[in-house]
Amino acid sequence: MPGNSFGSFFKVTTWGESHGPAIGTVIDGCPPRLPLDESMIQEALDRRRPGKGGITESPRKEPDRVQILSGVFEGMTTGTPICLLIENKDARSRSYDAIKDVFRPGHGDYTYLKRYGIRDYRGGGRASGRETAARVAAGAVAQVLLDTCGIKVIAYTIEFGGIAARQMDLAGVRGNRLFCPDPDAAKTMEERAREVRASGDSIGGIVETMATGVPAGLGDPVFDKLDAELAKALMSIGAVKGVEIGAGFKAARLLGSQNNDPITPKGFLTNNAGGILAGISNGEPIIARAAIKPIPSISRDQDTINTRGEPVKINIGGRHDVSAIPRIVPVCEAMVRLVLADHLLRKRAIEIHE
Amino acid sequence: MPGNSFGSFFKVTTWGESHGPAIGTVIDGCPPRLPLDESMIQEALDRRRPGKGGITESPRKEPDRVQILSGVFEGMTTGTPICLLIENKDARSRSYDAIKDVFRPGHGDYTYLKRYGIRDYRGGGRASGRETAARVAAGAVAQVLLDTCGIKVIAYTIEFGGIAARQMDLAGVRGNRLFCPDPDAAKTMEERAREVRASGDSIGGIVETMATGVPAGLGDPVFDKLDAELAKALMSIGAVKGVEIGAGFKAARLLGSQNNDPITPKGFLTNNAGGILAGISNGEPIIARAAIKPIPSISRDQDTINTRGEPVKINIGGRHDVSAIPRIVPVCEAMVRLVLADHLLRKRAIEIHE
Amino acid sequence: MPGNSFGSFFKVTTWGESHGPAIGTVIDGCPPRLPLDESMIQEALDRRRPGKGGITESPRKEPDRVQILSGVFEGMTTGTPICLLIENKDARSRSYDAIKDVFRPGHGDYTYLKRYGIRDYRGGGRASGRETAARVAAGAVAQVLLDTCGIKVIAYTIEFGGIAARQMDLAGVRGNRLFCPDPDAAKTMEERAREVRASGDSIGGIVETMATGVPAGLGDPVFDKLDAELAKALMSIGAVKGVEIGAGFKAARLLGSQNNDPITPKGFLTNNAGGILAGISNGEPIIARAAIKPIPSISRDQDTINTRGEPVKINIGGRHDVSAIPRIVPVCEAMVRLVLADHLLRKRAIEIHE
Amino acid sequence: MPGNSFGSFFKVTTWGESHGPAIGTVIDGCPPRLPLDESMIQEALDRRRPGKGGITESPRKEPDRVQILSGVFEGMTTGTPICLLIENKDARSRSYDAIKDVFRPGHGDYTYLKRYGIRDYRGGGRASGRETAARVAAGAVAQVLLDTCGIKVIAYTIEFGGIAARQMDLAGVRGNRLFCPDPDAAKTMEERAREVRASGDSIGGIVETMATGVPAGLGDPVFDKLDAELAKALMSIGAVKGVEIGAGFKAARLLGSQNNDPITPKGFLTNNAGGILAGISNGEPIIARAAIKPIPSISRDQDTINTRGEPVKINIGGRHDVSAIPRIVPVCEAMVRLVLADHLLRKRAIEIHE
Repeated sequence: MPGNSFGSFFKVTTWGESHGPAIGTVIDGCPPRLPLDESMIQEALDRRRPGKGGITESPRKEPDRVQILSGVFEGMTTGTPICLLIENKDARSRSYDAIKDVFRPGHGDYTYLKRYGIRDYRGGGRASGRETAARVAAGAVAQVLLDTCGIKVIAYTIEFGGIAARQMDLAGVRGNRLFCPDPDAAKTMEERAREVRASGDSIGGIVETMATGVPAGLGDPVFDKLDAELAKALMSIGAVKGVEIGAGFKAARLLGSQNNDPITPKGFLTNNAGGILAGISNGEPIIARAAIKPIPSISRDQDTINTRGEPVKINIGGRHDVSAIPRIVPVCEAMVRLVLADHLLRKRAIEIHE
Repeated sequence: MPGNSFGSFFKVTTWGESHGPAIGTVIDGCPPRLPLDESMIQEALDRRRPGKGGITESPRKEPDRVQILSGVFEGMTTGTPICLLIENKDARSRSYDAIKDVFRPGHGDYTYLKRYGIRDYRGGGRASGRETAARVAAGAVAQVLLDTCGIKVIAYTIEFGGIAARQMDLAGVRGNRLFCPDPDAAKTMEERAREVRASGDSIGGIVETMATGVPAGLGDPVFDKLDAELAKALMSIGAVKGVEIGAGFKAARLLGSQNNDPITPKGFLTNNAGGILAGISNGEPIIARAAIKPIPSISRDQDTINTRGEPVKINIGGRHDVSAIPRIVPVCEAMVRLVLADHLLRKRAIEIHE
Repeated sequence: MPGNSFGSFFKVTTWGESHGPAIGTVIDGCPPRLPLDESMIQEALDRRRPGKGGITESPRKEPDRVQILSGVFEGMTTGTPICLLIENKDARSRSYDAIKDVFRPGHGDYTYLKRYGIRDYRGGGRASGRETAARVAAGAVAQVLLDTCGIKVIAYTIEFGGIAARQMDLAGVRGNRLFCPDPDAAKTMEERAREVRASGDSIGGIVETMATGVPAGLGDPVFDKLDAELAKALMSIGAVKGVEIGAGFKAARLLGSQNNDPITPKGFLTNNAGGILAGISNGEPIIARAAIKPIPSISRDQDTINTRGEPVKINIGGRHDVSAIPRIVPVCEAMVRLVLADHLLRKRAIEIHE
Repeated sequence: MPGNSFGSFFKVTTWGESHGPAIGTVIDGCPPRLPLDESMIQEALDRRRPGKGGITESPRKEPDRVQILSGVFEGMTTGTPICLLIENKDARSRSYDAIKDVFRPGHGDYTYLKRYGIRDYRGGGRASGRETAARVAAGAVAQVLLDTCGIKVIAYTIEFGGIAARQMDLAGVRGNRLFCPDPDAAKTMEERAREVRASGDSIGGIVETMATGVPAGLGDPVFDKLDAELAKALMSIGAVKGVEIGAGFKAARLLGSQNNDPITPKGFLTNNAGGILAGISNGEPIIARAAIKPIPSISRDQDTINTRGEPVKINIGGRHDVSAIPRIVPVCEAMVRLVLADHLLRKRAIEIHE
């Protein structure tokens, strides 16, 4: 298991570096006879692309057009591996010569070299956020499977640069560049983003993902609990440093009588559990939150060393995203979809149909 | 992959229910020629057992003696599967008749039934905390492998019932029943535990695990990042509702210039990364925190339903642990050990020895 | 994947050495609500035990009583791991001192040492045929799942010491010690066995396994074809040196017009395919044959070396089985059951129920 | 594990249908810092392409140019997934309309429909022999790893249409279109091929693969024995119906004293074991043979049914390969390479370097 695959039954492998000819994914285990065409995947990819506003301004312009290379015949999945390819159109590697011999703080430059004894220094190589485009594409395929059961997944920004959303208008989430469910907070957040950008710095926040329509009974004890899989899925996104389910860290300060969700004939009265009990879904909405660190590329002097171990200063000039947040929102959705699709198939495998 | 195994190369499978004849684990992939006998495992198990103090007072008395059934010959591992068995000596199932037809709030009773269409109602069956004894045993074997590289793992309580540790005296962690690195805070915590117990309620907290001596270069991108694996490992413990690495959720409020750890010829100046960059260890101590919810069994009336869907009240009388915390500390250590042992072997597999 | 597990969804791990305290298996992924008790497993184990006749006369007397340690509650599987344990009652290791420092020809003594740098020299340790008792136990559990679909698996000896069965009386297979479907050939075979035994030598043969009632559509292209999995399953039995499906090696000499099985509205007219086309079952009986080598322990002088690399003679005295055949017949059945159980669940996972 | 991946540590996934835009493979787990460029892969692919002689005359003309899309930087592997892509240039699907509703005997048409409820009827879709081009490409990458240890793999035809090779001139294997080590037999074989072609029929044979330079100690007991993995690897090739190791089926008729390979200080005196004892390599050449059935597409009338279950005649006109043999030879090499590369890494993972 060399690390580039996710899932056991709905199994997704991503490949590709930020500056190679293309990136992509192979999905093995997708059930047959699901409707699928490129437009269904493209829609998710388009949401992940950098916008024109004040938060994501990567100088790189990628159309991110997905091609289906296999596994689909006459608009339907066939049960064979689905290979999706996205070409890298704007991978100018010359701009990376300045960082070739320097370890950027907060990046994987140093650790990749320690892991492999070699690194692709052009824009992070495999560690680049660009890899997540392949995840988003795979997640769109997973959603087609989830659609057959009425499962919906939505992610949104509940905190950004210390500013919290106070309303939960999920219908409006896609109406602002930060995917924030509170339009007023969204404005303050955008302002904060502009300030931080002006200072050459970067900023993080918290993204919440909610899955509704999840039937009770998904999740595999003991190690592959649904919450354990969600934690892995979200933490595998480069910028994520924390994950919590339901009440999360707050549960650590509650009494049992406060934290337990009472059960009634109509369902659970509260949802501190975040929809998961003993690692198995209980039919309530699944709630997972991810803490996003500020992106490490900043236009300010930082202390670091070069590959010869000498101290140097680095200032990563040029235009950069001020925060990973808006681009990570669709990635969170994608990862939650992958977990749910996998566990849906796991459950089906052992169902006895009487 | 049906969910009861952890790890790819150092692969641990646990089995057993709280009220069956025994629980245990099979470890497949442990390198040969490591010294191993039962006493090395027993020591870890003994730390997990309920104490006599005010926090864990399970009425069940289990000696938890481990037997090595395979994989060890003349005091050395042979490279073949190591099966460890712990008998259940005190599994009186008659005491569970009262809850046979009722779903306990906060427990897996309802979800296991939804998952499998059947449940072992005696004390939680497979979902019982008792399963973690097998993890602790497996973790002790992993530690033998880690010892060959000088890797040490220690877990401790940094918050309990809202009371935070303010000192970090790691040498003293095993000197109090809460495994708290702050002896003064430990006393206040024990007081709080007594209060909560008197009210028939329960309480949670936060456990931090630190691994030192971890060489740079452990961790498999993209999905099997070291932090992603740690998140899964810790979240797979029943009572855990949140996991964070290094600065964790705090990183969501920092600027990039604050959160990035400057690099110097002597190493990293700070450790907001928690020892992991781009999913790979950077040589600094690995820091992971887990939020522990209050245990759901409380001696107070709670609303719930029975298996016929009718509303009922439940009051889980008798003596119960007031918190899962002390018993979870060695389980956190065990899970972190399993992750590190697995990734140590993963790294070795691709090393080219020149 | 360290090698002691088989199957992805119906996953079987065996553990234990021939001279340790016990051997056993953990089955993870068995569907819940299947009837299971120890007697259902014991029946298969009893058929594998050495008989009193002229072929298998191991001096070791093992009752091979199986205990279910987990995964079954009130006579039904619960969906949790099923641990089965068989104690080694008669593991006298003193008798192995003579071979401690010598590599027995045809055994794994030399290769295990090369693999692990250590070996358990007592009777082959993990490489002992005794390990297959755990497989037979697991196979009996798999059969309970197959029973729910009407799948039957039977193995029988079609050649022994060069003597071929000429009748196919499958009802009579269990009526002779060699599990031969031709009672007349069985007598000649037993005579041959006595001759070979008298000369201190050993002998092999060919075991065929047939699975009936297998629905069309089992098998996972491309690498996990049903025939590929059967080949692996059977070749993983220590004494097996060849595997063929349907016409097998004979197909290499047929014309396409002879080898193709014509299809009619009532089914296939012939079964050269052995029930498998493009790696997927076609509804016809599945036919797999395994070539069994003569067991390597013989009471004749053989040239070998000791662990210091010096040439020595070895004569493995005492009573030994003259052939592995009769004991391997139930093991072939078990392995085919494991493959079918696994693929049954794989198929269910992706079935869309309309 | 949905079936399109092979290997645990050196993990190969293939994707693509014969009539989609492309086929390819993703290799995850390839060690870093191995030299790799497209020409090293192209050489193996070129040997698999249909020749101009009398045996393989597929009307389809594919240049089979491989592109490396990821995992290689400046001519060296980086340790990240290697995606290889081969475009389908000549995939005219209109020629398949005639077989759209008919199940071709000996093909996977019927079983794929039973497996997935849908099939890509254009040339076999995923079941097409074309998929093996991706395996050959992956095998070429595996060989780069094997080269670092001096392991060589060569396959050759030892029987074709009932005609056996009587010489073993391995140096001359690539000198004839049948990859036969006996140049005289090769001529008779080609003659036989012409006769069979003239009659509109097809023919099979036996391919042997030999690996030399394999160190003792490769192979993972119990289920992942080296011979079990080879059996699976070879049987996963569409046309293979039997696999044997070393003496293979002949061992079933030998006495133990004949079959055991005596050990001397200079090595094993004979190699009936085919280089594998107890599932682990013993340092002798590894010998595996595969029985190849005649290809099922023949220009003769055959009985079959259509998708409505009605009896029909089918005659697969046009030019076809008369035998799969020459194209399967490089595929056998590739599969053996994949097995060895995987087990090389498995062994490294648990080696203790003192």
